[in-house]
Amino acid sequence: MIVTYSRNAFYYETDRMDIIHHSNYVRWLEEARINMMEQMGFPFQKLEAMGILVPVLSVETEYKFPVRFGDRFEVQSELTKFTGCKFSLEYKVMNVTQDKQSLTAKTSHCFTDTSLRPVRLKQACPELYEKYMQYLRGPVST
Amino acid sequence: MIVTYSRNAFYYETDRMDIIHHSNYVRWLEEARINMMEQMGFPFQKLEAMGILVPVLSVETEYKFPVRFGDRFEVQSELTKFTGCKFSLEYKVMNVTQDKQSLTAKTSHCFTDTSLRPVRLKQACPELYEKYMQYLRGPVST
Amino acid sequence: MIVTYSRNAFYYETDRMDIIHHSNYVRWLEEARINMMEQMGFPFQKLEAMGILVPVLSVETEYKFPVRFGDRFEVQSELTKFTGCKFSLEYKVMNVTQDKQSLTAKTSHCFTDTSLRPVRLKQACPELYEKYMQYLRGPVST
Amino acid sequence: MIVTYSRNAFYYETDRMDIIHHSNYVRWLEEARINMMEQMGFPFQKLEAMGILVPVLSVETEYKFPVRFGDRFEVQSELTKFTGCKFSLEYKVMNVTQDKQSLTAKTSHCFTDTSLRPVRLKQACPELYEKYMQYLRGPVST
Repeated sequence: MIVTYSRNAFYYETDRMDIIHHSNYVRWLEEARINMMEQMGFPFQKLEAMGILVPVLSVETEYKFPVRFGDRFEVQSELTKFTGCKFSLEYKVMNVTQDKQSLTAKTSHCFTDTSLRPVRLKQACPELYEKYMQYLRGPVST
Repeated sequence: MIVTYSRNAFYYETDRMDIIHHSNYVRWLEEARINMMEQMGFPFQKLEAMGILVPVLSVETEYKFPVRFGDRFEVQSELTKFTGCKFSLEYKVMNVTQDKQSLTAKTSHCFTDTSLRPVRLKQACPELYEKYMQYLRGPVST
Repeated sequence: MIVTYSRNAFYYETDRMDIIHHSNYVRWLEEARINMMEQMGFPFQKLEAMGILVPVLSVETEYKFPVRFGDRFEVQSELTKFTGCKFSLEYKVMNVTQDKQSLTAKTSHCFTDTSLRPVRLKQACPELYEKYMQYLRGPVST
Repeated sequence: MIVTYSRNAFYYETDRMDIIHHSNYVRWLEEARINMMEQMGFPFQKLEAMGILVPVLSVETEYKFPVRFGDRFEVQSELTKFTGCKFSLEYKVMNVTQDKQSLTAKTSHCFTDTSLRPVRLKQACPELYEKYMQYLRGPVST
């Protein structure tokens, strides 16, 4: 299930190359993940209020076309792996204003307690576990 | 007692005007305050480890001359008021590379517990209280 | 004329005090200003495309109540002074989720060419000049 | 040739997990690259002054151990590929305070003109080309 998130690029996100600084796309991916959880009906702050954190394990980004100040972008996010402890997402970021694909990305994450020790989501939060199973990309049919 | 802190401006701190984004100077003031506490011999993390937070109450900045990528800047900070609960600092930020004054600023702060309730420093941390008294700007003689 | 701008606070805008870092409110004011120009029907990028920049001259903020991750905030902005070269805005930032006033702020700005030399808006961009005159707060009647 | 760059983590780089936000490490890699060019004797701003930009093509990060406020970190950077148009770096970020490896990363980049069209460094800037050849990791001997 591909979930989309969209807004305009902010002025303070630009750098002196007159494009969005590459580190800010990493922040947009986070905005999209948090928005995905809202769309799931389980806001991220609810998870953290239960003492469950979701640190980032890895990020991979490939920059293809710049986003500039005022351009509208759209992040298309998909949950591609979920083991119960860890999960991965894949993203496309579109420059909607320029009708170009700006970025592809992958991130991986785990669930931990507040001491950053791993927890299994099925035990720690069965309600979110069910939602993750539902949003997980199925096997690609041929 | 004026305390100085210096580094070069980072690339990612610029915006598409090709100058440092004005919000980043506010962050430099924080860097300078934290450095001041190191120079006092009482690092900020030691204070927070005691359960004392130091939220910002107000910021005033006046921008006079831009800092650009790679320019060296120097923050000159001075503790100008201290009541035991609250304190104020005044700053000059110099663009050292261009030999110009870039910014003047004032900030005010208070000491709180982790629930953001005010605490009196003399009781909560007498050691730092003494250092603040020592760094406080004396009455201006005429 | 008071113009409002609203969104939720992002995760990456928090700091280890578990509140939005004070420098990020300064960025929210910029978001609100740029949104105001969109609401005026004269997007900021159109002005910059004409070679007119709008550097920040000063910022004053007073922090009253924290915004936390996920809280919705609203910036209420008003153009309070406009001389043709310079202008000032005043802001209230509401924590909508907590129904509290979070911040009051003022900023001042000028219009410049790309070399950061002042320009008069009436000559440089009469269309925006008219809009500014229209949005300017009138004398307070008694 | 491994080049090191080091500083303490800033307060405003933390998030409410009480660790450095993962996007900020991406900025640290940039700081390290720019520092590498200074160590090469060819500051980045000199290259940009020649009309040569160096956009980021890709970033890969693997987070292993958090850096917290006040921790000293060290970025160890190495130029691992260089084709004349494109280059790659590999990084280790150490949490020096905790004596742990915090992050491994790779980034790739290209040289472009100010319209973001690729340029060959040998023609565009032979002096830097020579330095890159000199810093490039040699074939691993067995």
